[in-house]
Amino acid sequence: MTPSVELAPAVADAAAAVHRGDIRRIARLISRIEANDESLRPLLECLYLAGGRTPVIGITGPPGAGKSTLVDQLITRYRARALTVAVLAVDPASPFSGGAILGDRVRMGRHNTDAGVFIRSMSARGMLGGLARAAADCLVVLDAMGRDVILIETVGVGQNEIDIMRHAHSVLIVQTPAAGDAVQAVKAGILEIGDVFAVNKADTPGADRAAAALREAVEFRYDAHDPTAWHPPVLKVEATTGTGLDDMMQALDRHRSHLTAHPTQLRRRLLTGARLQVAELVAVALRRRYFLEDHRDARLTRVLDEVVERRCDPYGAAERLLEGGT
Amino acid sequence: MTPSVELAPAVADAAAAVHRGDIRRIARLISRIEANDESLRPLLECLYLAGGRTPVIGITGPPGAGKSTLVDQLITRYRARALTVAVLAVDPASPFSGGAILGDRVRMGRHNTDAGVFIRSMSARGMLGGLARAAADCLVVLDAMGRDVILIETVGVGQNEIDIMRHAHSVLIVQTPAAGDAVQAVKAGILEIGDVFAVNKADTPGADRAAAALREAVEFRYDAHDPTAWHPPVLKVEATTGTGLDDMMQALDRHRSHLTAHPTQLRRRLLTGARLQVAELVAVALRRRYFLEDHRDARLTRVLDEVVERRCDPYGAAERLLEGGT
Repeated sequence: MTPSVELAPAVADAAAAVHRGDIRRIARLISRIEANDESLRPLLECLYLAGGRTPVIGITGPPGAGKSTLVDQLITRYRARALTVAVLAVDPASPFSGGAILGDRVRMGRHNTDAGVFIRSMSARGMLGGLARAAADCLVVLDAMGRDVILIETVGVGQNEIDIMRHAHSVLIVQTPAAGDAVQAVKAGILEIGDVFAVNKADTPGADRAAAALREAVEFRYDAHDPTAWHPPVLKVEATTGTGLDDMMQALDRHRSHLTAHPTQLRRRLLTGARLQVAELVAVALRRRYFLEDHRDARLTRVLDEVVERRCDPYGAAERLLEGGT
Repeated sequence: MTPSVELAPAVADAAAAVHRGDIRRIARLISRIEANDESLRPLLECLYLAGGRTPVIGITGPPGAGKSTLVDQLITRYRARALTVAVLAVDPASPFSGGAILGDRVRMGRHNTDAGVFIRSMSARGMLGGLARAAADCLVVLDAMGRDVILIETVGVGQNEIDIMRHAHSVLIVQTPAAGDAVQAVKAGILEIGDVFAVNKADTPGADRAAAALREAVEFRYDAHDPTAWHPPVLKVEATTGTGLDDMMQALDRHRSHLTAHPTQLRRRLLTGARLQVAELVAVALRRRYFLEDHRDARLTRVLDEVVERRCDPYGAAERLLEGGT
């Protein structure tokens, strides 16, 4: 747990501030993570090596599925159990969307006087170096805060969102009775990452049909012959009234117990998250090392000249650079 | 121009179809590009090596700036000059947005019986391997079609959009009088990539102020002491009525002439585009080569195990993998 190298006093001081849950400094840290401040690396390394104990619950689903309200209800329920909560709301929306995202107003309104709830939004707006990278770094900080549970919410179900969800231990997929949601879910590949499925707005027409379609799709993937396999439940809920939410919480609790009972499954999940995070870091480092405008690399310059002069195509150029040991 | 390797008959046949502008086959090709169909590579290589002659005009700006209407007007004006047009509309929106994007209905309605106009939309929905990669591949196909001009439009002004605009020879930035647009533009880094700036909706309040703010920001970057430097104009336009659009077209024409007169400037621009495209291809290839779930690489497995066990942090892991010659 103790890093093998001596920590700079400033790093040790910042780490201590995070560990004791200093909200102001944590908020500033996250802003620096968003700005891709490279000088944070020693701190993140230090926090990472000492961390990894907080359960992380991911929540995702299409825009308008009611995720914000659901997360709000989850927070309330965790607080009723006297558990402290950290929430990271990630919005990969247009950089021009700006402003209030992900229903922060609602949640802030209800929880902003509660010191047991820390909520942070992160959007693609002005983001450098990728949202998945920033979200992973942010989770390192939230994990080190010592909260009892971390909720991470993303809007939409693209590859970015799926990558981010790989860092969660349990993933809750929120759908609506809207026609096509189940089909979209299959297409987007979220069936594979969901541990609990909630069909929200269960009081609207088509809820039963949507839940049935989703259940069928989930069953198709579930291996009934493997006694250690987690069987993802599909639940109907109403986030606004609270109907079905106790069942949903229990399902999340059961999934946590399942992971505790089958540590290799948690490990496999964490390996996927680590693989993606390291891949992203390698890609970013490579981009910086070889592809920044002002970088002078004779071999790269030669290859790019050939591409611009149409003597080599970009696909072949990439292969040549890779083969050369990059 | 002739590729040094013998082409497979199917590739030669497909290339010929693209060169003669076979719309159906081109549409299918682009769908395969969106699906990241690796088998297209020989065709794209072949088209790339023989291409590069079509002027590419990029149009970007925040959602709601009126880009669709403006592009529609540009198409009409190019057609009035008897020039043929290919349009690529890229929407990096949520994968769940789906449906009609970027005002296709408007444009399709006006131009869909005109064989001189080819319009294609591309969204992040269901996209594999990155929108910038797909857009660059798509430009290779559109360039090979032999149209007189290519318009490429993106929504929003994030890093993805800026990367895509690097493939354009001339970039038109569309803004609105909305407060903050100029500030956002500076933040987003689009001042650096814009060759012509159009403040649309010039009839709404604040247009003069917005244009002045933008002009000031542009002037700040412009080097008046360099006689070869392009001086980006800031124009007020009304896309719906057509006011100012002739001036805007002339500005784009002048920029084209400027590039022709200063080929090193065009080359520098193309180098940046090539650099980004090759970097993206290298990153994708690396990801596939080393980081796919089912890839068995002893060194990578060992490093990832250490990350999950918190004996190594992901940042250090990435460095170790890079130092080891990837």
